[in-house]
Amino acid sequence: MPPRLNETMRSRFVRDDATDEEIEHEAATVGPLAASVRELVDAVIRTEVDEAEIEDVRRQVDALTARLRAKGLEGSYGARLSSTGRVRNWGNAVIGVRNALAPPLEIVRDSERITCDFTLGAAYEGPPGLVHGGVSALILDQALGEAAAAGGRPGMTGTLTLRYCEATPLGRLRVEAEIDRVEGVKTFARGRILACREDGSDPTVTVEAEGVFILPRWAREKPEHPAATVDAI
Amino acid sequence: MPPRLNETMRSRFVRDDATDEEIEHEAATVGPLAASVRELVDAVIRTEVDEAEIEDVRRQVDALTARLRAKGLEGSYGARLSSTGRVRNWGNAVIGVRNALAPPLEIVRDSERITCDFTLGAAYEGPPGLVHGGVSALILDQALGEAAAAGGRPGMTGTLTLRYCEATPLGRLRVEAEIDRVEGVKTFARGRILACREDGSDPTVTVEAEGVFILPRWAREKPEHPAATVDAI
Repeated sequence: MPPRLNETMRSRFVRDDATDEEIEHEAATVGPLAASVRELVDAVIRTEVDEAEIEDVRRQVDALTARLRAKGLEGSYGARLSSTGRVRNWGNAVIGVRNALAPPLEIVRDSERITCDFTLGAAYEGPPGLVHGGVSALILDQALGEAAAAGGRPGMTGTLTLRYCEATPLGRLRVEAEIDRVEGVKTFARGRILACREDGSDPTVTVEAEGVFILPRWAREKPEHPAATVDAI
Repeated sequence: MPPRLNETMRSRFVRDDATDEEIEHEAATVGPLAASVRELVDAVIRTEVDEAEIEDVRRQVDALTARLRAKGLEGSYGARLSSTGRVRNWGNAVIGVRNALAPPLEIVRDSERITCDFTLGAAYEGPPGLVHGGVSALILDQALGEAAAAGGRPGMTGTLTLRYCEATPLGRLRVEAEIDRVEGVKTFARGRILACREDGSDPTVTVEAEGVFILPRWAREKPEHPAATVDAI
């Protein structure tokens, strides 16, 4: 791990004294705004209103952006760690509650595996009507990393291999992942995306993934570090 | 390739009679709206304005979404093919001009390789201050597929393997890709992401990728199909 990486990470891994109540209150305020922007993103892709309307909406969007920018962070959101051990990586591109790009995945974790049911709409398209192959990779990278962390083995992605078994339709999907094995600082995780069928038949695997996650140096040096605090790496 | 896939693709691969002038005009109208929404996405992640302001902005966003939804497509954007051979896959998650989730990449294609300089901000974050590993995978899947298509060998992703050499900082980046070799219906492509350094030194490779892209049946059956029409698969 190059020194620059640790410096960058540490500079954005902020401890604060937010209470659980404050965290939940903020999530309940900004989460719905991100959800509304997610709908706006979808509407821009699919709209067929006339040019004058589009131009007026654009001006209004710019005005709203200016209002939000009246007070804000200089850089990216990073990750905050509260005194009660809760991590907020709310800018995360897959699970970030503030991030309209994130579906966002609400991952169910246990010590053996993680699962998540989610839906991908028009904004995640690659081939017509299908999930972009790279979006499947994005989801699986997060899922495998979460599985490693859920097993107490957080890490940076070292390698990731994806096998596309069949096309993934836009719509209702599931992702599953678990740890395969551990070798020193390397955690081998595997997972898959399944497509839910409209006819109610069993979901079928569309993409399979294997990944190696490397335990970062600071986690090796501080084995007592609670697992909850390292989800965000 | 399962029959269902081809049916899905064909149902959304629409030929229309849009002229080049009409296409450029539409891109010049809707592209800036998507760009404005991209800024809004970023502002939502980074804002620190108070709760009342966030709730009011959310209501205004919902009103704008309703205006855009007054007339629109029922499903995803898919891909349109004009009579002059131009493809609009404008919902695409990486290059779609209508898609605020897409950076969007403006890819420079020649027959040997593709390149693209781009910038990733707060919405593409994984570890604090760094590009999400899955976002790098998303970018590289598109880039390798574009390289295959640029060489006249479009295809669906079969496998994709990523090697993370070092952390990718948010900021100015470059992606490059080219065809490695062709074996029957399989095209082997490879590529990499490079991080541009603030001190002006040479960009360094942060992620490497190899992928296999499978020539779809319809492209095998119609070898005279112009390459320009198949970028969108």
